[in-house]
Amino acid sequence: VSQDYAWWIDGKAGSLLQPTERVLQYGDGLFETMRICNRNIEYLDRHLQRLRTGCERLAIGFEDWLALEAELNEIAQRYSDAVLKLLLCRTGTGRGYAAPEAASARIILSVYPPPHWPAAYATNGISVRICDFRLASQPRLAGIKHLNRLEQVLARQEWRKGYEEGLLLDYNDRVIEGTMSNIFLVDNNRLLTPALDSSGVSGVMRSVIIDLAAVLGMSTEIRNIALSELMASDETFICNSLIGIWPIAAIDDTWRAGAGPVTAWLQAELRQNRQHLPGRWYVE
Amino acid sequence: VSQDYAWWIDGKAGSLLQPTERVLQYGDGLFETMRICNRNIEYLDRHLQRLRTGCERLAIGFEDWLALEAELNEIAQRYSDAVLKLLLCRTGTGRGYAAPEAASARIILSVYPPPHWPAAYATNGISVRICDFRLASQPRLAGIKHLNRLEQVLARQEWRKGYEEGLLLDYNDRVIEGTMSNIFLVDNNRLLTPALDSSGVSGVMRSVIIDLAAVLGMSTEIRNIALSELMASDETFICNSLIGIWPIAAIDDTWRAGAGPVTAWLQAELRQNRQHLPGRWYVE
Repeated sequence: VSQDYAWWIDGKAGSLLQPTERVLQYGDGLFETMRICNRNIEYLDRHLQRLRTGCERLAIGFEDWLALEAELNEIAQRYSDAVLKLLLCRTGTGRGYAAPEAASARIILSVYPPPHWPAAYATNGISVRICDFRLASQPRLAGIKHLNRLEQVLARQEWRKGYEEGLLLDYNDRVIEGTMSNIFLVDNNRLLTPALDSSGVSGVMRSVIIDLAAVLGMSTEIRNIALSELMASDETFICNSLIGIWPIAAIDDTWRAGAGPVTAWLQAELRQNRQHLPGRWYVE
Repeated sequence: VSQDYAWWIDGKAGSLLQPTERVLQYGDGLFETMRICNRNIEYLDRHLQRLRTGCERLAIGFEDWLALEAELNEIAQRYSDAVLKLLLCRTGTGRGYAAPEAASARIILSVYPPPHWPAAYATNGISVRICDFRLASQPRLAGIKHLNRLEQVLARQEWRKGYEEGLLLDYNDRVIEGTMSNIFLVDNNRLLTPALDSSGVSGVMRSVIIDLAAVLGMSTEIRNIALSELMASDETFICNSLIGIWPIAAIDDTWRAGAGPVTAWLQAELRQNRQHLPGRWYVE
């Protein structure tokens, strides 16, 4: 079978994995999905900061940060435009949830071709659905990008065509995120984005947009957002590290808007500022 | 490195896995942990029923049930006493949460030596702690044995020594289960066990004990159980497919009991009835 991707396990190209590893048995690890553009990983610092926070939360004793960064940059040198996915997996092959005391981490890198989305997604906006599936509240896993992703898999099963993304609420009717993105609402000269302290993934692009908005003189309020507030807003967009920013043009059959002016402004500024935007990833 | 386990991927001994598989990227699959005793898999029917329910919940299109059962029995023939772990993993190696329309499942089997626990665990009982970690409520994933197990990994980090198991509550102070077991309370001539409709794994041994109790004339009430109710009980035990039944002798430093008479009776009856107990696994 021809494959349009390549991978490395602990630096070894095309290496394979024993199925007794903890990452398979429990999803015991973290991941990052990064964009390689002109042989450079966009926002690498922020991705590594999130990864570090994830290691702290899961108590994974990974130490080789400098070697990891060097390996990532070395791989990026080979691609002009690609997706680079990193998995950081706690080592161990024994039975039982208790990790070995000497457990460290295995790094799995894979490179995929760049995604090709219609340009209209970024200019005219996308259609999204409100998923029936609700996210659980689990503060201990909120914000970080861990490998237990069955919630996203189940939510993504709700449609095959007709939507570019699904928005996820929690069981308290709060808007949290998209299945693969974060969401912002524009409220006059201010941004709103959901607090992610009980569920959701705190996105690297989300942190970039908050910093970019600040540079442009716009504050961002991070707080709980009810579904009713989303449906009452007149400008809203999603973001992630691969797509950048996409305006939301329609939510199910009940909400419609054009691509908004603040969203377009942020998109233009993001393109300009991509490589020299100060700031750090963080989780509230 | 010498290994004390063997494994098969889709029937091929010692085969290895591409790290781009969905089971690694998302934990997109299910598992069963079974006991092989005298070349026979204990309660295989119930394990397969739970696996079928899990496939329905996750919408995994696995069809080869007869071939799977034959493979399991064939492997069991080679071992007098062992642990047999099965992973059922949705196929697919592409990026994105949407599964390929043609996705089926890959079966990973691994055999481990039988665990050796001190006999006193079953006779005198064990010490358990009430974990600080709380389980999230997610009805869509409750009851089934899916591969997203970071909650158990985090809970199991709370102790290294001094306890044989940790009990998990949800965020509403309800007792749900142990990290690797289910729990029962004895209330006169009746059993109580937590409802598992919003979190927890509905254990095969739990279903066996409910059926065994019925045969012995004891009813089992399945409902929400508050921590206060557990602490007020005077006989309680945990169970799973490998350990059978272990009495709880101590909960943290606040609750102590001897191994109770109903627990001992159930243990004795379980040993006798192991292979010819009627009933089915089920999830409420």
